Amino acid sequence: MRAAVVHSWGDAEQLRVETVPDPIPEDGEVLVELRASSLNWHDVIVRQTGRGFTTPSILGMDGAGTRLDTGDDTIIYPCMNWGSDETAPAKDFSILGDSTDGTYADLVSVPVDNLFPKPEHLSWEEAAALPCAGLTAYRAMFTRADLKEGETVLVLGAGSGVSTFAVTFGAAAGAHVLVTSSSNDKIESVRAIGAERGFLYTDPDWVEQVVEATGGGVDVVISGTGANLAEALGCLKPGGRIAVFGSSAGRTATFEVPMLYFGQFTVLGTTLGSPTDFGQMLQFVEKHRIRPVIDSTWALDDVVAAHQHLESRRHLGKIVLVNKAG
Amino acid sequence: MRAAVVHSWGDAEQLRVETVPDPIPEDGEVLVELRASSLNWHDVIVRQTGRGFTTPSILGMDGAGTRLDTGDDTIIYPCMNWGSDETAPAKDFSILGDSTDGTYADLVSVPVDNLFPKPEHLSWEEAAALPCAGLTAYRAMFTRADLKEGETVLVLGAGSGVSTFAVTFGAAAGAHVLVTSSSNDKIESVRAIGAERGFLYTDPDWVEQVVEATGGGVDVVISGTGANLAEALGCLKPGGRIAVFGSSAGRTATFEVPMLYFGQFTVLGTTLGSPTDFGQMLQFVEKHRIRPVIDSTWALDDVVAAHQHLESRRHLGKIVLVNKAG
Repeated sequence: MRAAVVHSWGDAEQLRVETVPDPIPEDGEVLVELRASSLNWHDVIVRQTGRGFTTPSILGMDGAGTRLDTGDDTIIYPCMNWGSDETAPAKDFSILGDSTDGTYADLVSVPVDNLFPKPEHLSWEEAAALPCAGLTAYRAMFTRADLKEGETVLVLGAGSGVSTFAVTFGAAAGAHVLVTSSSNDKIESVRAIGAERGFLYTDPDWVEQVVEATGGGVDVVISGTGANLAEALGCLKPGGRIAVFGSSAGRTATFEVPMLYFGQFTVLGTTLGSPTDFGQMLQFVEKHRIRPVIDSTWALDDVVAAHQHLESRRHLGKIVLVNKAG
Repeated sequence: MRAAVVHSWGDAEQLRVETVPDPIPEDGEVLVELRASSLNWHDVIVRQTGRGFTTPSILGMDGAGTRLDTGDDTIIYPCMNWGSDETAPAKDFSILGDSTDGTYADLVSVPVDNLFPKPEHLSWEEAAALPCAGLTAYRAMFTRADLKEGETVLVLGAGSGVSTFAVTFGAAAGAHVLVTSSSNDKIESVRAIGAERGFLYTDPDWVEQVVEATGGGVDVVISGTGANLAEALGCLKPGGRIAVFGSSAGRTATFEVPMLYFGQFTVLGTTLGSPTDFGQMLQFVEKHRIRPVIDSTWALDDVVAAHQHLESRRHLGKIVLVNKAG
């Protein structure tokens, strides 16, 4: 089969599309013929650093395609061994494409329990855009932050795959959705998918702007930015919740602890989600006929350029690979 | 009446026991003849800094005594205007003794809704020890962190009033209670009230000791220490919760955000509690026949020495004033 293989960790040009042997399913696994896959920031980190995994490696957590055992259309749940505890994954938890071969390929072999029916209203590209980012956004917003209809949610950083899902999901749930961005163009784009208003975080007083615009702060913040936790807490009304799923603005956060307890705030760490979260996310997407925001689609052969585009951070929404056209 | 009055903010010797006019109840208020009151760290902060309040001031959030309207024994809920939202207090929230006169006196005038029946199994001194610290511990541990029977809870800093309640409440709820302290003597003392084991936070590897002793971390941390959030998070098992009610080790916390989301941790800011929390706390105390840990009792006339003792941080449990002996 064709696959994008990394032989040594490094820049995007380490990705080489080659012919490799077809995967051989282990017990309980099924082969999927992939129609599309999508890029996640996690793929970039692994490609750059290896994260302790071995080469040669086929990256890719997200994919949709055809089950070779039944012929059914399928979308892949990207986590292995979450376990029975909804609050956190088990010790031997792993992610598709890390220590196993991933979805940047013609075929992938995955445990049968990871195969969910593809939502019928989605194209292959849209389905492949959904798993990791949709799962992370859904768990952050609903399982963890318990966002309710009529509440106001602020999504930090409008452009990322997870953020665009958070905007779409929040609006579908009947919440008032606000966003931050460094760019008025991105703010305009996410207004089109359900955001009511945006704030430029390049303005020194953006936190005060949020508090003033909302008459005292938002109910929920969804943050993939990490380091700016103090500012994010400053956007909350008393008793507000913040779900943190990433650290794109830096890994280290410093804040004044009295803010936390005088505000009666709740800070919720979250990433990816359980099989239950994934099933609920798919139901939510089907019920509300949600279509992922796709920034761009690329042929699998153009994976290097696709990775470079993700690293440029100029995208809005998901970057998708077409594994098999037609 | 007699009262301990502060005429200018500063050290403990600013507290002067004087004869002042009796308070005159406003509409909806009731006079309470105080039998005992207790000290909180908040009193020290206000005495030192004023926190924007005016002098002359009678401090004191905690008190128990006799209602002059009915003659009933009463324990005072120390918060005014919490409001109808259980998640956080309303804007005009205030604390007894801040902008109103408090409980370091023969008499105090408080809204009738703040008067709860005194638990019968408690002495006056024990009842006066309960309100603020018991309320803060109860909300942190149950309303916020949702501690369950059989779970393991780590209480940081064994000596404070809130911490000793957290130990007692946790043990009564059927949890395994661990503590940290700087002193083996304090650890021995809290073992007597229900802690199973203690760790010296002066040991550089105390976090690793907690993780090893618990086979991977605790379910819940109760922290009044604040600044050491990174270490506290390090004590949690995946999916664990930490309730933070204070910052005795410093106001500013710095931590690595990926810990938060890879751990699926929940950080819960909390202080004091709603009238609902207070009522539930009293029920819990009555059901389990809990007796507050009293470090020492002092005559109201000795309030200066009592404050100096609190500031020495050598206490374990609550420091109580006897307003009216006998």
